[in-house]
Amino acid sequence: MNAPLTAIENSGRLEATMREIGREARHAAHTLALAPAARKNAALAAMAGSIRRARSAILAANAEDVAGAKAAGATAAFRDRLTLDGERIEAMAAGLEAIRKLKDPVGTVTASWRRPNGMRIERVRVPLGVIGVIYESRPNVTADAGALCLKAGNAVILRGGSESFRSARAIHAAMVEGLSEAGLPAAAIALVPTRDRAAVGMMLAGLDGALDLIVPRGGKDLVARVQAEARVPVFAHLEGVCHVYVDGKAKLPMAKSIVLNAKMRRTGVCGAAETLLVDRAGAARLLEPLVAMLIDAGCEVRGDAAVQAVDDRVKPANEDDWSAEYLDAILTVGVVDGVDAAIAHIERYGSHHTDAIVTEDKRAAEKFLREVDSAIVLHNASTQFADGGEFGFGAEIGIATGRLHARGPVGVEQLTTFKYRIHGNGQTRP
Amino acid sequence: MNAPLTAIENSGRLEATMREIGREARHAAHTLALAPAARKNAALAAMAGSIRRARSAILAANAEDVAGAKAAGATAAFRDRLTLDGERIEAMAAGLEAIRKLKDPVGTVTASWRRPNGMRIERVRVPLGVIGVIYESRPNVTADAGALCLKAGNAVILRGGSESFRSARAIHAAMVEGLSEAGLPAAAIALVPTRDRAAVGMMLAGLDGALDLIVPRGGKDLVARVQAEARVPVFAHLEGVCHVYVDGKAKLPMAKSIVLNAKMRRTGVCGAAETLLVDRAGAARLLEPLVAMLIDAGCEVRGDAAVQAVDDRVKPANEDDWSAEYLDAILTVGVVDGVDAAIAHIERYGSHHTDAIVTEDKRAAEKFLREVDSAIVLHNASTQFADGGEFGFGAEIGIATGRLHARGPVGVEQLTTFKYRIHGNGQTRP
Repeated sequence: MNAPLTAIENSGRLEATMREIGREARHAAHTLALAPAARKNAALAAMAGSIRRARSAILAANAEDVAGAKAAGATAAFRDRLTLDGERIEAMAAGLEAIRKLKDPVGTVTASWRRPNGMRIERVRVPLGVIGVIYESRPNVTADAGALCLKAGNAVILRGGSESFRSARAIHAAMVEGLSEAGLPAAAIALVPTRDRAAVGMMLAGLDGALDLIVPRGGKDLVARVQAEARVPVFAHLEGVCHVYVDGKAKLPMAKSIVLNAKMRRTGVCGAAETLLVDRAGAARLLEPLVAMLIDAGCEVRGDAAVQAVDDRVKPANEDDWSAEYLDAILTVGVVDGVDAAIAHIERYGSHHTDAIVTEDKRAAEKFLREVDSAIVLHNASTQFADGGEFGFGAEIGIATGRLHARGPVGVEQLTTFKYRIHGNGQTRP
Repeated sequence: MNAPLTAIENSGRLEATMREIGREARHAAHTLALAPAARKNAALAAMAGSIRRARSAILAANAEDVAGAKAAGATAAFRDRLTLDGERIEAMAAGLEAIRKLKDPVGTVTASWRRPNGMRIERVRVPLGVIGVIYESRPNVTADAGALCLKAGNAVILRGGSESFRSARAIHAAMVEGLSEAGLPAAAIALVPTRDRAAVGMMLAGLDGALDLIVPRGGKDLVARVQAEARVPVFAHLEGVCHVYVDGKAKLPMAKSIVLNAKMRRTGVCGAAETLLVDRAGAARLLEPLVAMLIDAGCEVRGDAAVQAVDDRVKPANEDDWSAEYLDAILTVGVVDGVDAAIAHIERYGSHHTDAIVTEDKRAAEKFLREVDSAIVLHNASTQFADGGEFGFGAEIGIATGRLHARGPVGVEQLTTFKYRIHGNGQTRP
């Protein structure tokens, strides 16, 4: 009878701990919402310093995590994501400084108008509140996500992967030191202090109303679980099945450089192209060189009959390939009948993330940009620009494909909401 | 065994019907998203005409609903909300014309900037998609909500109260006529064709991904159920526990006119004041005249000890009164120690809807506007301005107190989302 009782006791303890973290975060959010930019920036600067000073402690904690992962049989790719070195720690600190330099979005008046009765109405940015971030093996998310939420005046509750628990704890300790130096509450950036997976379920349930938003950072399984179970709003993308459509009026050199970049610059990012569509009207001129270029660059090409016909190294594409997110050097290639067919294909198989058209035909470009219902649509540019830094947001907490509030790269502005301030001089409503 | 089997069969049929409505709405949303403003406006004009022409059919259907409600023992207030007459039908038609005259938000570029590599990034408004509206007895919501969603390029699935089912069906038939006249799909404005309450549960579950948003329009029970059960985002407010804080530096005449208007103009609206807080520093000058004015105007005043002391008609307030949304001629009145105590009180007992300060002290006003975490905060103006029309939005589908996407009055702009359009000339990411 002992084991179950202990389990129940522990689960009760965990619940009490998580509730307390939620309450303290809510309280800290109140302080942060009113904190001036200078104080938040002082905290970010102090955090960069304390992370640099904690270098050896962080590396030691990380070495334990990496050894644990190795013993547990983690793949080399997994261990690479988990492993920190001096350079990666310096990059974390530099990231905090970059976030410090961003404009504080809180308090910005985004609209202002006067009513006929003389009242002035202002729409002003305010923080969202308390944000839960659930992530996996990358320890640097502890610093990045914590800092971005702080910059926008939000409290954050971080729940890292159990494999990177010691690393996250060491980084978090340094962040808290920075908060204290600047006189901000330690609870502004909380780290769930246990590997117990039950904590995730409690966060998805919203911690008794303490969480305003959840951001999952990690693989498709994590995102799918969060989207399915969360009882609070979620900013996320499940996958990026991104397309490049090369129109019949495209220039071949530009098409080649955009396709190669969109697929091969980095194959593992969500903005990497997974499908290439070529206009039948230009196929005779464009298809063979594009396919040959890709295969010569080490990309596996899976194609329909028309594509297989131009190069015998092309493998046949099956129905699943058209909606596959490979995140690898593989590309599905198909021939379509013009921009309308390309749009219809993208609506059918795409993930509303990022899609591009390459063409010199302005009308085709406008049609594509207007009709493709994705967070980001591009004309004559690579899909790999789907990134907050590339948008000029400075940093991002992720990319959202949901339709509400945030869409595309989620930077500090998207981590705020707004309220209306009305200035009157005695107005009453007739 | 027969009854259960039939029930299962029916529930299967209802589910199939609702799924089909969802699929058709999604399809219609695609058409609407690309429909030019002129076509949507033509539909709105045609709808106004067809509603006017359908006057007697709508009145006949409504008379059946009212008779049914009377037979079922509905209250007089309920029957008043349900009852249509020539004037209310004309108001519906005029409402459609007012929405027609609003600026089309779709396609508006809300931000545009150029990157160092020459790419131009635009943020442009696009429709949200498919919106579910769940409402109660007021038949006019069929026209108002349908038209607002249409204007913003969204398809809508309307689910009216079972008591107003015949009225809603007659109004809906007229709306569909208007859609057809303008060449827009009938499925753009769908009405759930059954009184079966199970349809609501299916909508809350999201109709297999067909719904992007749910807007409940009705009493607190409806909103609470939708907020608790919906698996899709919700724009709503559960209640409006709105405060007026009369600061020690307030002018008495302005305080009197704002307090009287905030409470008594209409007591049943969500922006009506439910609590009056008076600064102790000005209580000797302000409290007695404010309380006497309210009671003389027919308002019941429930107060703390200090308030009871100034007028023997004041009833004692209990703990529940401080968070009560009366929606009636009742007001809780308390004395607080200045603006900080007022803010703390509002954060503790309020509902983050609409709160006002009356004062000639600019610093106190700024503090209040900055620190009260409500969708709408006012200085020297009545809380009854919490209304999309009063904001200049032309019309609203409701008021939201959630933190994401829409907050305060929800007009056509808040019924859109955005996407990023990037214009390049061959840019690739380094």
